[in-house]
Amino acid sequence: MKEIKIFSPATVANVSCGFDVLGFCLDTVGDVMTVRKTKAKGIAITKIEGASLPYEPENNVAGVAAKAILDAADNPFGVEIEIYKNIKPGSGVGSSSASASGTVWAINELLGRPFNKQELTAFGMKGEALASGAEHADNVAPGIFGGFTLVKQLNPLKVVQLPTPSEMWATIIHPQIEVKTAEARAILPKEVSLQKAIKQWANVGSFISGLYDEDYELISDSLIDNIVEPHRSQLIPYFDEVKKAMLDNGALGAGISGSGPSIFSLCKGEATAMKVAEVINKVYESTEIEFDIYVSKINTSGVKVLNLK
Amino acid sequence: MKEIKIFSPATVANVSCGFDVLGFCLDTVGDVMTVRKTKAKGIAITKIEGASLPYEPENNVAGVAAKAILDAADNPFGVEIEIYKNIKPGSGVGSSSASASGTVWAINELLGRPFNKQELTAFGMKGEALASGAEHADNVAPGIFGGFTLVKQLNPLKVVQLPTPSEMWATIIHPQIEVKTAEARAILPKEVSLQKAIKQWANVGSFISGLYDEDYELISDSLIDNIVEPHRSQLIPYFDEVKKAMLDNGALGAGISGSGPSIFSLCKGEATAMKVAEVINKVYESTEIEFDIYVSKINTSGVKVLNLK
Repeated sequence: MKEIKIFSPATVANVSCGFDVLGFCLDTVGDVMTVRKTKAKGIAITKIEGASLPYEPENNVAGVAAKAILDAADNPFGVEIEIYKNIKPGSGVGSSSASASGTVWAINELLGRPFNKQELTAFGMKGEALASGAEHADNVAPGIFGGFTLVKQLNPLKVVQLPTPSEMWATIIHPQIEVKTAEARAILPKEVSLQKAIKQWANVGSFISGLYDEDYELISDSLIDNIVEPHRSQLIPYFDEVKKAMLDNGALGAGISGSGPSIFSLCKGEATAMKVAEVINKVYESTEIEFDIYVSKINTSGVKVLNLK
Repeated sequence: MKEIKIFSPATVANVSCGFDVLGFCLDTVGDVMTVRKTKAKGIAITKIEGASLPYEPENNVAGVAAKAILDAADNPFGVEIEIYKNIKPGSGVGSSSASASGTVWAINELLGRPFNKQELTAFGMKGEALASGAEHADNVAPGIFGGFTLVKQLNPLKVVQLPTPSEMWATIIHPQIEVKTAEARAILPKEVSLQKAIKQWANVGSFISGLYDEDYELISDSLIDNIVEPHRSQLIPYFDEVKKAMLDNGALGAGISGSGPSIFSLCKGEATAMKVAEVINKVYESTEIEFDIYVSKINTSGVKVLNLK
């Protein structure tokens, strides 16, 4: 194999109760990338469409991630990378991590699959760190593993693959406003009350039990975030209206995707996901803010090959 | 059925990462109780052996729990209760809740099983509240449900039954010192850092995933408590030595049982559980403190019938 073209999916991190640890993977929203072996060593980003991002590999998430995996494999070849961004940077559905996940997944295929998913996630985190200023895996992990993931710990990295109930869909709205990651971080409380923390870990526990048992009611009851959402939701216009519309129309739960501004909901079945999309479209249509709405089944495979030669 | 004799098991609450929400049930440590229908309405505690506890129903956990379930059933009959305590009050393995769980389970049988386990747990909590000053379900729930349980929320009560890996055993030491519940509560921090809270809910999540997947390594990695244990362990003599001996000899994890002073460990297999018992026996033998050591498979049924007539 000399060249591989892949689909690298958008992902939702945090998932209400699981701040900094939970994430899931979308199926119909994502970037397309082509990665090509070159005889000359080194990394070249040869095309970027759909977003204005740096071409220098050391300043590009894909370039940094590529270097991490190629260095670990002792650089048997170089690569050319083409990036077709469909996920808008700053949307809160893992735009930078899609570039990182897709790159390391593709290069692992070109190498003959020497690395496992844990290792690929660790390489992807190196790229993600360039974008977010710190190593995170809560978007890279669901991109690589697919489905729902739990980042148990970062050092050493340990990702737990969680099961995906068969009828699980997501509906997401991306209001095209800028939420600066630094601001979204600064607004977080440094300390939380023990009582609130207990409720949060009870909900993380019951959410995960709900995934294993396909207990949609328990999943719904667990999608609560009393710690981060009250702070960050202030940065997102019409958050309360959108969340209420989602819940009133059958969503299992709703909250901030990553650090925002996207708002996600999880839904049982396509019909509910479509209904939710319709009603949140109405909420935002009446505003002056540009927006995108995505409806997707949960993607249980993560990055996918499109073609190769 | 006029009379039922039951075994009401000891239980371990908190389970390191799951402060206030997780618990599990023991198989070979517990009280024996006999509950007998009487034509006269009302509750009489007619025998208490093994501990010095009040006979007035309104001052006895079993009496209060009995009133809760009988009132809910419109008091079709009265009961006489005999209590044979093997679980020492104040040991930290759910002594009071065993009285509560056993009573409501037995009376539900005498009534013809009108109530489900969620309801029985709620009745048991009424009794438990007499002992602890607040309604808790993290010992009553595993006593009623068996196995591992997650108390997702108290109001309304929602207990999630978790799976029990087939080779799961526990070894517990009860140092016979008094840890006052009030002191164990007062020593808790009111606020915790967000970073520590995130680690705790990551561990709750991975622990529960480990239970479902029978992944003993993941269970072991998750049995960490950076929030409560550093404070409460100060109240338990030789805690660090016992914990280290448990972990050095193959225990998956170790920590404070409930609010102490008992120290629990979870082990894969009987042989490891026995080995752990031996080494902690050595640690405490050299002290002046009286102690008991228990080795038990996890009890997946909860309260059990012994005989009836």
